[in-house]
Amino acid sequence: MGKIKLGSNVFIPMPVTLLGIKIDGKANFMALGWVSRLNASPPLIGAAINKYHYSSEGIRENETFSINIPSENLIKETDYCGLVSGRETDKSTLFNVFYGETGSAPLIEECPLSLECKLVDIYEMPSNELIIGEIVETYLDKDYIKDDAPDVKKMNPLFLTMPDNNYWNLGENVGKAWDVGKELKLGEDESEYV
Amino acid sequence: MGKIKLGSNVFIPMPVTLLGIKIDGKANFMALGWVSRLNASPPLIGAAINKYHYSSEGIRENETFSINIPSENLIKETDYCGLVSGRETDKSTLFNVFYGETGSAPLIEECPLSLECKLVDIYEMPSNELIIGEIVETYLDKDYIKDDAPDVKKMNPLFLTMPDNNYWNLGENVGKAWDVGKELKLGEDESEYV
Repeated sequence: MGKIKLGSNVFIPMPVTLLGIKIDGKANFMALGWVSRLNASPPLIGAAINKYHYSSEGIRENETFSINIPSENLIKETDYCGLVSGRETDKSTLFNVFYGETGSAPLIEECPLSLECKLVDIYEMPSNELIIGEIVETYLDKDYIKDDAPDVKKMNPLFLTMPDNNYWNLGENVGKAWDVGKELKLGEDESEYV
Repeated sequence: MGKIKLGSNVFIPMPVTLLGIKIDGKANFMALGWVSRLNASPPLIGAAINKYHYSSEGIRENETFSINIPSENLIKETDYCGLVSGRETDKSTLFNVFYGETGSAPLIEECPLSLECKLVDIYEMPSNELIIGEIVETYLDKDYIKDDAPDVKKMNPLFLTMPDNNYWNLGENVGKAWDVGKELKLGEDESEYV
């Protein structure tokens, strides 16, 4: 077996999102890759951010946030949001911002998909905190709709890998989930008859 | 502004991984998309799984688990792990399994990258629980190494989108993180001199 040990500080491929929080009365956005759905019902999502980020202060102000999915054409703006802190740089005019149900979670008009969330808990860890929110509404740009759902290929989301620090776009559709594996399952069922 | 409301149970693009846990003395694997790094130092990772999954019982047995990144060529086996429960089906022989530091977290030889984790906490939610582990070691197949790190293009990880339930492979490298946005930053710095 040819395995090499890489140590412990290793990463998995990440979706690229923009975390939006209103701080000191202004919209602020940070690039966020440490993000995942957490609970099915109610629909919870979590964002793991450094405790010293400006967004960490801000989340306590309105207790609302947004998770926005940028398309590849927003790669520079997205990366910029990860390069500069809202503490020194006003990022409120980088995108056209709109507000939804909560009235305080800044949503990005240019992003095909935006999730609006209400903070439900903060899970503390040594260097980061997990901001846990309930998704209260989601906004899909009408140019990206297909069968009443997001047209993922058209959305063309970005992914990030580390430590190579590369952004990737979406590849090809290579199969259906909860489906392509049935072939192996059928094999089993059939074996009962052999 | 042309935005359509999609409701609250909406998903973001997910990395496709396999969660490995030894249960009742046997390796078991489930397909996992709700996964993210959580803390920088120490390196923590979280997996949000349904409380009624067999893996949820199993994690309490040895308090270790693995996160494995399958390549596109393992799409059927990966999907199969999401189709059948270890409660009814023995998935221990689906892959060649090896063990590392912990001696109990089953690692998949066929996956280019495997993270071995020790459970540090379980965060309870209404329908799911977040299994939080510290990464203790990572194993990279030597055929996928480039500059002492994973060769991501060669690894060719999968992504899952819902509700369309499609698997996608990795697209093209479209830019460097913490770099492509500098152009916008430079613009600002320059503006000081205008």
